[in-house]
Amino acid sequence: MRIAQVAPLYESVPPRAYGATERVVSFLTEALTHAGHRVTLFATGDSTTAAELVPICPRGLWRDVDVWDTLTHHVRQLEAVAARAADFDVVHFHGDPFHFPLARRLPFAHLTTMHGQLLAADHGPLFEAFPDAPLVSISDNQRRPLPHANWRATVHHGMPLDALQFHAGRGDYLLFLGRMMGEKRPDRAIEIARRAGLPLKMAAKVHPGEVEYFRNEVEPMLRANADIVEYLGEVGGAQRAALIGNARALLFPVDWPEPFGMVMIEAMASGTPVVAWRRGAVPEVLDEGETGFIVEDVDAAVDAVARVASLDRRRCRAVFERRFDATRMAADYVAVYEGLLAR
Amino acid sequence: MRIAQVAPLYESVPPRAYGATERVVSFLTEALTHAGHRVTLFATGDSTTAAELVPICPRGLWRDVDVWDTLTHHVRQLEAVAARAADFDVVHFHGDPFHFPLARRLPFAHLTTMHGQLLAADHGPLFEAFPDAPLVSISDNQRRPLPHANWRATVHHGMPLDALQFHAGRGDYLLFLGRMMGEKRPDRAIEIARRAGLPLKMAAKVHPGEVEYFRNEVEPMLRANADIVEYLGEVGGAQRAALIGNARALLFPVDWPEPFGMVMIEAMASGTPVVAWRRGAVPEVLDEGETGFIVEDVDAAVDAVARVASLDRRRCRAVFERRFDATRMAADYVAVYEGLLAR
Repeated sequence: MRIAQVAPLYESVPPRAYGATERVVSFLTEALTHAGHRVTLFATGDSTTAAELVPICPRGLWRDVDVWDTLTHHVRQLEAVAARAADFDVVHFHGDPFHFPLARRLPFAHLTTMHGQLLAADHGPLFEAFPDAPLVSISDNQRRPLPHANWRATVHHGMPLDALQFHAGRGDYLLFLGRMMGEKRPDRAIEIARRAGLPLKMAAKVHPGEVEYFRNEVEPMLRANADIVEYLGEVGGAQRAALIGNARALLFPVDWPEPFGMVMIEAMASGTPVVAWRRGAVPEVLDEGETGFIVEDVDAAVDAVARVASLDRRRCRAVFERRFDATRMAADYVAVYEGLLAR
Repeated sequence: MRIAQVAPLYESVPPRAYGATERVVSFLTEALTHAGHRVTLFATGDSTTAAELVPICPRGLWRDVDVWDTLTHHVRQLEAVAARAADFDVVHFHGDPFHFPLARRLPFAHLTTMHGQLLAADHGPLFEAFPDAPLVSISDNQRRPLPHANWRATVHHGMPLDALQFHAGRGDYLLFLGRMMGEKRPDRAIEIARRAGLPLKMAAKVHPGEVEYFRNEVEPMLRANADIVEYLGEVGGAQRAALIGNARALLFPVDWPEPFGMVMIEAMASGTPVVAWRRGAVPEVLDEGETGFIVEDVDAAVDAVARVASLDRRRCRAVFERRFDATRMAADYVAVYEGLLAR
């Protein structure tokens, strides 16, 4: 099949460090290429892929200090896709769905994975205006605000089996990983660590829009808890892998309807259990008592942290391999592509 | 001529209060309709026009607390335009230029007025990717970062002659009007007023993204200068007109390359002179010694305020009528439309 993958341009594919969507697009692109499909990736010029790369901008837009209006670059990307419309059977979009008006007028089949939270007041009217635009959700929970949109499938994210190595040791610290923003509740992570009597390592990107939150809310907490909390900033590559694999548990105390939660499967792949709040996709991704514990308050989280040593880290890894292999994800998407082409 | 006007959806057309682009689109739409063209306006549902209105959303997106992702609504708007492509000779876009890939594949002529600051790192690559997309600048100065783009004309904004009434009285206060943000330099306005020994009225919208700036920077200044400064918040309609007309002078101490500066012509229309910084389009819009004074520092601004009483308020109005009549603006645009259709 001739497939185009259209990635957001905020980070490279794969991303240097933070960038959940770009990471998933990378895993999918490589798995599809490996499966023998002819794949073209529209992404930043410093992306790395076995597929054909069509570079749109030199580097991730968030890493380019001169870039202000990110939409303009995504507009050029859409044109680059449209200019090669005849080359593709399916074009798979992963960014903001402003391609809908053009895509419905081009000869290829197209598909859009919604990677973020759905907003009824915004995406509701949009999906109604484009009832023909096929959509994929990354969890069933993500659909809840708009269950009647043109969903073709839920495809849970996946990761190559060798992306992260299994770590057998049970670890002596807790980990908070991701983006440093209010909904991710770094404050809860700190409270849990203090009450559990374990050190906490925090590796988190501070997005330009969240600098105020970091300065006003997070930094004072870091200072007040400097005896147990180590803040590492944004971490990538081998350092990130070791950080995940050597943790006792990943804390995922989210306070919003997390549409998937990529870091949870990264933890599983490393053998690290997860203690997560019952929000969004968490109950779909975690297997209670196998890959971690699902909680609803800090008391339960502290209790769960005490019990994670009872979980079998090999079992976490085994569940990851069964449920969240990138090959499974690619096969799921190919099934959706085939459904579109059969119409 | 069958003309579509595609307005940004942040505010109604015309806007309730703040909203320079929506105000200009309104003036242009009404002037074109009055001139006998068949005009269709794609805008918010609470817009008011003599043209045919195609409503996209119930009200200005900035006024809708449920709206978060404004792009989704503009995507629906683009589809509404495309669905009626055969109805128009020319489609005139005023928002973010994400329509370029679709517009070049539709049968109508199209034109985009750039209403904001041009960013070389963003608009440069965009305009290079779409060398066929005709552009209009709102001042010659606005083009400076990208002088070689596909500019078809500079069209200065205009306003109906009866939009604001002439006020003959010379006024006893200074005025700061517009958006409350750092580049507009409310701090300079306060300093000028204090040194000039005149009261200052400030009527300015605080955009959601600028609340921090307002709280941290502006509010302390307002409190410290409460003896001479009156902050009125966002003001519209008759109150706004009276506020402008009764001022001694409008202060426009901008610290950025202001692409036009609509409030300057509103002041002129009311007979109120302007004291403005030599930035962006200011020297194109103001006639030094006729409609105001152009300065480069606070000393000169204080001196200018002392001299504004020497300017003839009737002369300000006369220059406005000659240079910034909406009929002139509409005629300028029709000339551009005709140029596009003649190709």
